[in-house]
Amino acid sequence: MPISPARLIPAALLVLLAGGGRPAGAADDEKDIRAVLDAQVVAWNKGDLDGFMAGYWNDEKLTFISGGGITFGWKGTKARYEKRYKADGKEMGKLVFSELHVETLGRDTAMLRGKFGLTFEKETDEKKRTASGRFTLILRKKADGWKIVHDHTSADEKK
Amino acid sequence: MPISPARLIPAALLVLLAGGGRPAGAADDEKDIRAVLDAQVVAWNKGDLDGFMAGYWNDEKLTFISGGGITFGWKGTKARYEKRYKADGKEMGKLVFSELHVETLGRDTAMLRGKFGLTFEKETDEKKRTASGRFTLILRKKADGWKIVHDHTSADEKK
Repeated sequence: MPISPARLIPAALLVLLAGGGRPAGAADDEKDIRAVLDAQVVAWNKGDLDGFMAGYWNDEKLTFISGGGITFGWKGTKARYEKRYKADGKEMGKLVFSELHVETLGRDTAMLRGKFGLTFEKETDEKKRTASGRFTLILRKKADGWKIVHDHTSADEKK
Repeated sequence: MPISPARLIPAALLVLLAGGGRPAGAADDEKDIRAVLDAQVVAWNKGDLDGFMAGYWNDEKLTFISGGGITFGWKGTKARYEKRYKADGKEMGKLVFSELHVETLGRDTAMLRGKFGLTFEKETDEKKRTASGRFTLILRKKADGWKIVHDHTSADEKK
């Protein structure tokens, strides 16, 4: 008679596999991941780019794809945001995320897709007053919490 | 004295956890995933949209983001491709993938980022003769092999 693999797993080990009795699970992960994005929105809307960047993995292997281009590394990604939103005559604007959907892909990995909207209050050109689009994020749970390790953002096609 | 969790795992179980002795690993997964995309390119360049679509998870939970819009489900995604590349006056063109980077995220999950290039041979407008951009894919290992469960594709910004 074949032995069911489940029979080989002692109860103590099952507890270990389940996370040593901690109540952490997909629901907690989703909550923690949403908190990362909530903190990003709060930081952005205070003009705090460093606070916003805290949601990203501070590593040269971070990747950011947008508009067909790819940017490597945390520093490069920050420089890209600085150029677009902090340079002379630029403003960060007011950021809103919506339609967020989190999907855990494993113990320490998740994807998140959502929509962003930006409103530039100082902008006088009506066409440039708002920007919007969608993003797909890959997040991994690091020692200091969930961090975005890959970001693919694309703007709405202009009508 | 605290008991090391490793001490609780019997050797037989370690073999089970390691995949029952099968040699499959990240390298094999990457090879299998690249084969999915290779097959997509071959199918596309034969004008075989069904063959191309075989790389996608045939499920209503498949998601496809492009140009700021989101399409749900395999049927919707196929319809989107049909409208863009199979409708009157449209052509599928010649597809090339490059700069493919595969990263396994867990036992049955991977991300893949890469570049696409399309050349439309019948197109007479020089500006519309080529299209290119980047994509991020999430793939999961299903009963019938690795399948794309999420696709975020963005076209190069037109200069």
